[in-house]
Amino acid sequence: MCELLGMSANVPTDICFSFTGLMQRGGRTGPHRDGWGIAFYDGNACRVFHDPAASADSELARLVHRYPIKSKTVLSHIRRATHGRVCLENTHPFVRELWGRMWSFAHNGKLPGVKRLPLGFYRPVGTTDSEHAFCWMLHQIRAAFPRPPARVAPLARLIAALSDELRALGTFNLLLSDARHLFVYCTTHLCHITRRAPFGEARLEDAEVVVDFARETTEDDVVTVVATRPLTTNEAWTPLSTGALEVFSNGLPVWRRGLEANV
Amino acid sequence: MCELLGMSANVPTDICFSFTGLMQRGGRTGPHRDGWGIAFYDGNACRVFHDPAASADSELARLVHRYPIKSKTVLSHIRRATHGRVCLENTHPFVRELWGRMWSFAHNGKLPGVKRLPLGFYRPVGTTDSEHAFCWMLHQIRAAFPRPPARVAPLARLIAALSDELRALGTFNLLLSDARHLFVYCTTHLCHITRRAPFGEARLEDAEVVVDFARETTEDDVVTVVATRPLTTNEAWTPLSTGALEVFSNGLPVWRRGLEANV
Repeated sequence: MCELLGMSANVPTDICFSFTGLMQRGGRTGPHRDGWGIAFYDGNACRVFHDPAASADSELARLVHRYPIKSKTVLSHIRRATHGRVCLENTHPFVRELWGRMWSFAHNGKLPGVKRLPLGFYRPVGTTDSEHAFCWMLHQIRAAFPRPPARVAPLARLIAALSDELRALGTFNLLLSDARHLFVYCTTHLCHITRRAPFGEARLEDAEVVVDFARETTEDDVVTVVATRPLTTNEAWTPLSTGALEVFSNGLPVWRRGLEANV
Repeated sequence: MCELLGMSANVPTDICFSFTGLMQRGGRTGPHRDGWGIAFYDGNACRVFHDPAASADSELARLVHRYPIKSKTVLSHIRRATHGRVCLENTHPFVRELWGRMWSFAHNGKLPGVKRLPLGFYRPVGTTDSEHAFCWMLHQIRAAFPRPPARVAPLARLIAALSDELRALGTFNLLLSDARHLFVYCTTHLCHITRRAPFGEARLEDAEVVVDFARETTEDDVVTVVATRPLTTNEAWTPLSTGALEVFSNGLPVWRRGLEANV
């Protein structure tokens, strides 16, 4: 198993606080020693940092932590290898271009048999089940939508259906972004929290760190954080149920399976 | 104009020395203030660091400089914007996947009219002429070689022909990698040097730094460095002529236009 972390915000926001908690789980408070990665969106592009080393020991993780990159959409993953050797090629998040936008994908869970799913245009660079699933999924999206749909609902419905197919193979907890939205699909463990005014204090579970968001934000800021397990001890995180798909944009939910309002 | 830096080596090698010289040109000894990027290959994947800030002032550049990432193939670019605004989306090197390998592309020069060249599968994420040229070129390569050719010669001949087409539009100085080779095409300014035993001292042009490679290498190491202008003052760099294509792999030239030996 691995740990996932995602963020959607309405203004460029740094993820240093949550990342501080996550990186402890990469070899210190958790067993996820087999690399980590993070993607920060800026427009249709994203910066991706990958390191096959454990995040708790990673010089690069400390750099990302010290150097606050602000972004409206962030995906991160720390890995405990279950399939595929430990190397850069197998380190999430995986990235591919579709519609002139960089898509990024991070997954936890096992997908035995996924390599029987036929690939199209996109080919895995590494050997993980996860990257195979991403290449298959993105080809299906491209085939269904040669151009980006005007509304997110039809795209989200397709992503939900593809995710269901993958979940049928094993465990599929997903963070996916098309540079505009953060798609979150749950099989077993994912939860989220939306922070907005009035902001309060938050206390990390994995490190002795407390942040007072009221001092770091403005009244109009809205930030949703998604994680495998709650990262803080004094806030109420909402768990996702099996088969749930939530879509966030600009910090807010814009679509969920069965509720297509606000799009 | 921008500045390019490439490296091909037979063992994983850090590029800190050359990068130290290059980053000075990003706003200190040179006018290339509009961002920089670098790709380090590891297997078929690469780590890419992008920063729209000037490299001489960039916290991220200092991090890359302090944290020696070893790689057999590296591409780097510092930008002086001539086309397209200064933002992450327009920062080289650009990266796309083909044949399950990450390709990377960095260009200097202008290509007026390049956007009339038809695109296929790959779409630009930003607005530069350079990324359009890359997307066009990679689609042509994919169309000609749905699978990777067994030898580099036919691929190199196609890349030379496509580069000639681009050069006809303006100026096309290119660094391109398919994760196995470094392709270098020259219109105006590119030069290279191959360092091997017996190693000597090298003195940077843009910073008061001297390195004694004899102390940092083994007898079997072979490293070729390619740059827009010589980075050292006490070594003999070989200039490329207009229309020349050189292909390096494991530190050595393996193909050049008109000389197809050693492949």
